Amino acid sequence: MQVNKAVITAAGRKQRSLPLQLLIDRDGQQKSVLRIIIEEVLHAGVEEIGVVVCPGDEEAYRAACGDHAGRLRFIQQTEPLGYGHAVYCARSFTGQDPFLLLVGDHLYVSREARSCAQQLMEAALSEQCAISAVQASREHLLPYYGAVGGRRAPGKPDLYLIERVIEKPTPTAAEQQLVVPGLRAGYYLCFFGMHVLTPMIMSILGERMANLTPGASLDLSGALDDLARRERYMALLNHGWRYDVGVKYGLLMTQLALGLAGDEREQVLAQLVELLAQRQLNTAEH
Amino acid sequence: MQVNKAVITAAGRKQRSLPLQLLIDRDGQQKSVLRIIIEEVLHAGVEEIGVVVCPGDEEAYRAACGDHAGRLRFIQQTEPLGYGHAVYCARSFTGQDPFLLLVGDHLYVSREARSCAQQLMEAALSEQCAISAVQASREHLLPYYGAVGGRRAPGKPDLYLIERVIEKPTPTAAEQQLVVPGLRAGYYLCFFGMHVLTPMIMSILGERMANLTPGASLDLSGALDDLARRERYMALLNHGWRYDVGVKYGLLMTQLALGLAGDEREQVLAQLVELLAQRQLNTAEH
Repeated sequence: MQVNKAVITAAGRKQRSLPLQLLIDRDGQQKSVLRIIIEEVLHAGVEEIGVVVCPGDEEAYRAACGDHAGRLRFIQQTEPLGYGHAVYCARSFTGQDPFLLLVGDHLYVSREARSCAQQLMEAALSEQCAISAVQASREHLLPYYGAVGGRRAPGKPDLYLIERVIEKPTPTAAEQQLVVPGLRAGYYLCFFGMHVLTPMIMSILGERMANLTPGASLDLSGALDDLARRERYMALLNHGWRYDVGVKYGLLMTQLALGLAGDEREQVLAQLVELLAQRQLNTAEH
Repeated sequence: MQVNKAVITAAGRKQRSLPLQLLIDRDGQQKSVLRIIIEEVLHAGVEEIGVVVCPGDEEAYRAACGDHAGRLRFIQQTEPLGYGHAVYCARSFTGQDPFLLLVGDHLYVSREARSCAQQLMEAALSEQCAISAVQASREHLLPYYGAVGGRRAPGKPDLYLIERVIEKPTPTAAEQQLVVPGLRAGYYLCFFGMHVLTPMIMSILGERMANLTPGASLDLSGALDDLARRERYMALLNHGWRYDVGVKYGLLMTQLALGLAGDEREQVLAQLVELLAQRQLNTAEH
């Protein structure tokens, strides 16, 4: 298995301007959110990139990618039918190939020299199967994520064999079906927002689309639960940080995280302290 | 003199995406930079707003203004001939009326209940003349701003009668022509980026455009220097803060400033401390 393709979903109706927002990356360069994600993909060795967009956003997104615009293929999601559907829209682009899957409104900061996508890609190539990045998360975070159940892969640190996937499980469902032996009590493996998937996922999504109740939307976790039954499907524990630029103050916190993780850490800290001191001084004056 | 019109210049070729960047305003609402500026204008009692743009940016800017889009009039600056020229492009919009002038990449945080634009508007209406907001700035900041020379208006706190205007003066020029009696030594009155101007400025800019050397660009300060000779022209000392979103980490610092000045100050401080503590903890772990 070789992974030469990546899919970035960026068609969320309420979040269309997020990929265009400007941040200073760890290297000190100003880039759009989309461009930072694309560079994470390229850095992981993947060069063919499909971006799933709302029709009409192509031009703005292309402009936001600078030098990388030429290598992007835009894929329209014409109806907002859920995350699973957004991925399914990319089926002609991915064809019979495995692909790296990322979302267009999350940025990742690794704790090591290898980026988060790089770590996941290396595990996928070494295991030769579908694999999702996960984090050990406290039970109270279950309402926000998809979570997986399974068991440790013997002799392979940070790797798990996935047996079940449930989207936003209740605590009871998680306790009954997603307990992973060896994790601390009250912790579950929640999706980190980054996967390497095999073409099988497109077949599964196709079956599910065909049976979709009118008005319903298609999630990805249900299809991944199927995938775990049909193929070897693993999880890689990631120790980095994920930042959702779409939540309130998400851009602020993402920028601070990039700034504090990057080459200009000292400068960012200095400006931060200066601003806080100035506001304090002025409060004191009045 | 009544001021019912405002001009916002947002046609800087390198900064076209800045007005579209999203920030959380002091009221906790997410808005584009352009929308925050427009609300500063509306809050100061001005309802007809002309926005000087690069041709082609109208649609994106309109979308970034939400409910206010209907009241905007877009004015194209077809050639990048300088700030004075950008203002001059608005001459048919302003006609024989005075106008409030703001730039599309600066945001203001007031130290008092009245916004910075409101304070300037009140002074303009009370003095019935052109007036520019200024700050007393140290000499080392002279290379970045236009600066004014003049004298205090007797009996009027924070008001000055402007006699000279020089764009980015050298320390020598400033010492010879811009010393303002009563200011601390080494301090000068530098533009804050906000003016109320009379129609005379358009006549002056027109004369200067007619005499412009090919290849040169037209600044505003030279025209304001002429204005000081032809009309009563004042400066109002502003005690608030200005944030340039176009400088490096400008968006970050602007967002922090808005957050710390707003209704959600406690939440922003808490998230900030949490992020710093998390990064510290993780540094300590490794």
